Amino acid sequence: MNYENLTLHTDKYQINMMYAHWAQGSLNERAVFEVYFRKLPFGNGFAVAAGLERVIAYIEGLRFGEEEIAYLKEQEENYSEEFLQLLREFRFTGNMDAVPEGTIVFPNEPLVRVEARVFEAQLVETALLNFVNFQTLIATKASRIKQVAGDDVLLEFGTRRAQEADAAIWGARAAYIAGFHATSNMRCGMLFGIPTKGTHAHAWVQGHATEEEAFRKYAEVLPDQVTLLVDTYDTLRSGVPNAIRIGHMLEQQGKRMNAIRLDSGDLAYLSQRARAMLDEAGLPYVKIVASNDLDENIIFNLKAQGARIDTWGVGTQLITAGDQPSLGGVYKLVAREEDGAFIPVIKISGNPEKVSTPGIKEVYRIINRKTGMADGDYIALREEEGVKRGEPIQLHDPLHPYIPTIIKDYEAVSLLRNIFRDGKLVYTMPSLGEIRDYHKQQMHQFWPQYLRKLNPETYRVNISVAAWQLKLDLIKRYREQ
Amino acid sequence: MNYENLTLHTDKYQINMMYAHWAQGSLNERAVFEVYFRKLPFGNGFAVAAGLERVIAYIEGLRFGEEEIAYLKEQEENYSEEFLQLLREFRFTGNMDAVPEGTIVFPNEPLVRVEARVFEAQLVETALLNFVNFQTLIATKASRIKQVAGDDVLLEFGTRRAQEADAAIWGARAAYIAGFHATSNMRCGMLFGIPTKGTHAHAWVQGHATEEEAFRKYAEVLPDQVTLLVDTYDTLRSGVPNAIRIGHMLEQQGKRMNAIRLDSGDLAYLSQRARAMLDEAGLPYVKIVASNDLDENIIFNLKAQGARIDTWGVGTQLITAGDQPSLGGVYKLVAREEDGAFIPVIKISGNPEKVSTPGIKEVYRIINRKTGMADGDYIALREEEGVKRGEPIQLHDPLHPYIPTIIKDYEAVSLLRNIFRDGKLVYTMPSLGEIRDYHKQQMHQFWPQYLRKLNPETYRVNISVAAWQLKLDLIKRYREQ
Repeated sequence: MNYENLTLHTDKYQINMMYAHWAQGSLNERAVFEVYFRKLPFGNGFAVAAGLERVIAYIEGLRFGEEEIAYLKEQEENYSEEFLQLLREFRFTGNMDAVPEGTIVFPNEPLVRVEARVFEAQLVETALLNFVNFQTLIATKASRIKQVAGDDVLLEFGTRRAQEADAAIWGARAAYIAGFHATSNMRCGMLFGIPTKGTHAHAWVQGHATEEEAFRKYAEVLPDQVTLLVDTYDTLRSGVPNAIRIGHMLEQQGKRMNAIRLDSGDLAYLSQRARAMLDEAGLPYVKIVASNDLDENIIFNLKAQGARIDTWGVGTQLITAGDQPSLGGVYKLVAREEDGAFIPVIKISGNPEKVSTPGIKEVYRIINRKTGMADGDYIALREEEGVKRGEPIQLHDPLHPYIPTIIKDYEAVSLLRNIFRDGKLVYTMPSLGEIRDYHKQQMHQFWPQYLRKLNPETYRVNISVAAWQLKLDLIKRYREQ
Repeated sequence: MNYENLTLHTDKYQINMMYAHWAQGSLNERAVFEVYFRKLPFGNGFAVAAGLERVIAYIEGLRFGEEEIAYLKEQEENYSEEFLQLLREFRFTGNMDAVPEGTIVFPNEPLVRVEARVFEAQLVETALLNFVNFQTLIATKASRIKQVAGDDVLLEFGTRRAQEADAAIWGARAAYIAGFHATSNMRCGMLFGIPTKGTHAHAWVQGHATEEEAFRKYAEVLPDQVTLLVDTYDTLRSGVPNAIRIGHMLEQQGKRMNAIRLDSGDLAYLSQRARAMLDEAGLPYVKIVASNDLDENIIFNLKAQGARIDTWGVGTQLITAGDQPSLGGVYKLVAREEDGAFIPVIKISGNPEKVSTPGIKEVYRIINRKTGMADGDYIALREEEGVKRGEPIQLHDPLHPYIPTIIKDYEAVSLLRNIFRDGKLVYTMPSLGEIRDYHKQQMHQFWPQYLRKLNPETYRVNISVAAWQLKLDLIKRYREQ
C-alpha cells in the first residue's frame, strides 16, 4: 500500500478537469487561483496562517507513480495512454506565492496564490485547502488560548482525541507556532523538533500497592522529571500529601520535584488548596499542572476565580478546534490566460458575499510610521505599483464606500512571499523556532482590541480602488450578457 | 523524515512508563486494558465501531528504528543503552481482542481489549484511542445521515475541510462502512477500493466563453459521466437550461446525461423547479445531486419540504463530525498480573460515572430467539461461562438495580473477536464490502426506536451480577483503606 504518495490526495473532479483540459487542448493555458477564507473562526478577530511547510513538501513530492497510473486506468476507460503518459511525466512547473506561517491574516486575503498551467493548478486545489484550512484553524485556536494564558506554560495533550494521526502532529505543530511550549506526542517531537512533555499514567498508580509507593518508584527512576498525577484516588487527602512526601524525599537527595498534575475535579478549588499545602510543606517551587477538557474560556474563568495553575495541558478542544472544527477556505480562479495575456475572472453567486474578487492580487500590511502598529491591510492588484513606492493610497471599504480614506505616511509590508518559481523552490523555509518568533513579532504589531477573544474590534481590510472598480466592471459585464 | 513509522505516535508518558517498568523490573508483568467510551455522540442511540484495520496495521508495524532510538536517547539521558536495546528488539507479543468494524456498540462496552506485558500494553494506548475514537465517531455520524437518506445515494465530499490527510481518507472509509456509496477522494479510492465520484469545477465553466460551451466540451470528452454543475451563474435561468441542451445533445448520440448538481441556494425550491424543467424537457432520468454544508438535519428537513434530490454530497459536517468533533474513548487498566495470576483493578474517581468497571470482561448481544432482534447487551466477566451455554442470566441495570430481570430463551452473540494471540495476527480481516454488509445486518437486528436520530429509546446494556459485585467489593475495599 503506497501510503506516502499524496499525489492522488485530490478530488476526482480535479483529475477529470485535467483530462478534459488535455482532451480539448487547453492544458497548457495558465491560470491563477487564490486561497482565502471568508469568515474568521470562533468569533476571533484574526487568524494565524499555517500549513505552508506541508504544502511545500506536497508540491515537491507530486509524482504519479505506477500504482497511481494503474488505478486511474482501471477507473476510467476514457483516460487514454497519451494522457496517462503526461501524468507519468507530471511535475509542478508553476509559480506559488504564500504568506509565511505564523502571519496574522484576515478574511478575503490571498494566503496562497498559484499561477500555473491549468493542468497543474487544478490538481493541487484539494490538498492545499485540506492542509491550510486545518493548520490555520488550529493555529488560530491555539492563539486564542495563548491570549488568555499569558506567561503560563501551555502543553498540547490532544493526540488521543485528534482526528487521526496527521491531525495530531500537524495540529500540535500549529499550536507550537502560536505560542504553545510543548506537546505530548513523541512522533511530533521527533519530526518537528518540538519539546515534549509528559507525566505518568493513572495505571502506574493502580499498578502499585499504594499511591505513595507508585510515586516513590517513579521518582527513583526518573528523578529529573518528577511530575506526579495526584487524582487517581483522592487529590487532597491522598494525592497531594503523598506527592509532598516525595518532594521531601527528593530534597534529601538534593533534587527538586517539578510539579503535581490535577486532571479532574474543581480545578480552581483544588489548585488553591494544593498550592497552600505545597507552600506549607516548604515546596513553593513545585508547580501545578492542570488538564481536563480545557479551552480558552475555561482557562479564562479559572484564572478569574484565582486558580493557582502554572501550566495548562490542553487536549481535545484545541486539537479538534472543538467549537468550530473547520475553516471554510476556498481556492478560486481569479485570472486565466487568453491569447498569451491574463484576463481577470469573477465567480458570480446568488450569495453576494460569495462573489469573488477578480484579478491577481497582492496584500499589504499598512504600518503606521509613528506607532509602528498595523493600521489596516490593503488588497491591491499585482500591477498597482504606487503602494510599493509609498505613494498616497485610497482605502476603499466595500461595506462603507461613502467614507474614502486617503493615507500617506505609511510603510506597506507585502505579505505574500515567492515560494515556487517555474516549479523551483525559491523560498528558504524558516526553522520552527523562527516561525514562532515571527508570529510573536506579528502579534506585537496589533493593538490589543483586535486580539481579545470576545467581541474584538474589526481590523480594517480594504481593497484598492482599481481592484474594486474591476469587480464592479465584471459584474456589470456579466449582467449585460 | 521518517514519516511512515508510527511507533512514536504515542504520548511521552507512555515511554516514561515503559522506562519506569523496565527500571523497577516489572516490564514483563502482564496487564489487561480495555477501550470503551462513556457517552454516545450527537445524542445518537448507538455508535458504529471502526478503526480496527488501522489498529492492526499499526500493531504489526511497531518497530523502534534507529531514527526513533536516536531521538529518545537525545531526549532523556536516563534512557540507558540497555533500555534502548530492549526497544530495538520490541515487538508486540500480546493478545488483542476487538469488536469487528461495523458493529453497533454502546457506552461502557469493551471495543478493544489488550492483554500484554505492561511494557507493550502501555505503548499502544495513545494510537489505539486516536484511531478508534476518530473512526468510530465518523462512522456513527455517517450512520445518522444514512438513517435519514434512506435509499438515496450518499457521497463523501469532505477532503478540503477535513482535519488533515489521514482524517480525510480514514473518515471517508468509516462513512463507507456506515452506508455511504462513494467518496470524491482518489487516494482513498485507490487505498481502500471505495468507489469515487466527481463532477467538474466551477473554474471549468469560468474558463470558457459561455456556460453552454463549457458543458458541451465536458460532455464531449467524458460522455459517460456527465454530471453538470449548474450554479456557476444562475441555476434556473442559465445552468439548468444549458444542461437540458446538453442532455438533448447526448440523446442524439444515443447517450444519457447522468445528473445535474446544485451547490448553492435554496435546495428544496431549486430541486423542485429543476426536476420539473428536466421532466418537461423529456429528461426524467437525469438525477439531481445536491451539496452545500449538508448534515442529517438539513437532509431530513429538505426531504420533509419535498426536495427532489436523488444524491447527497456531504462534506464538512460529516468528515469533521461538525456538531461534536471528538469521541471520548478511554483505555483503562482492568486487571494486572500478581504472582502469576490476574487480579482485577479499579480506577476510582470523584466523578461517579468515571469509576471504572474492574475485571476482564466480555460483551454479549442478547438476541431474542422469537423475533431475532437484539433485546439488550450483557457485559460479564470473561470467566462466566453460563451465558455462553445459554443458561438463564440475570440482567443487572446499575441505574435501576431494583428491577432484576431474568432471561432464558436467548442467543448470546459474543462481540469481541480474537485479533492477536501472542503477537500473531489470528484474525482474517474482512474486505471492506464484507464490513459494510455486516454493518447493514447489524442494523437490522435493532428495532427502529433505538436507531432514530432524535430522542432514541435507550438500548439496554446490562452487567452481570458477578461483575457488579466485583465492582462493589473493590470500591468497598478501597474505602476501607
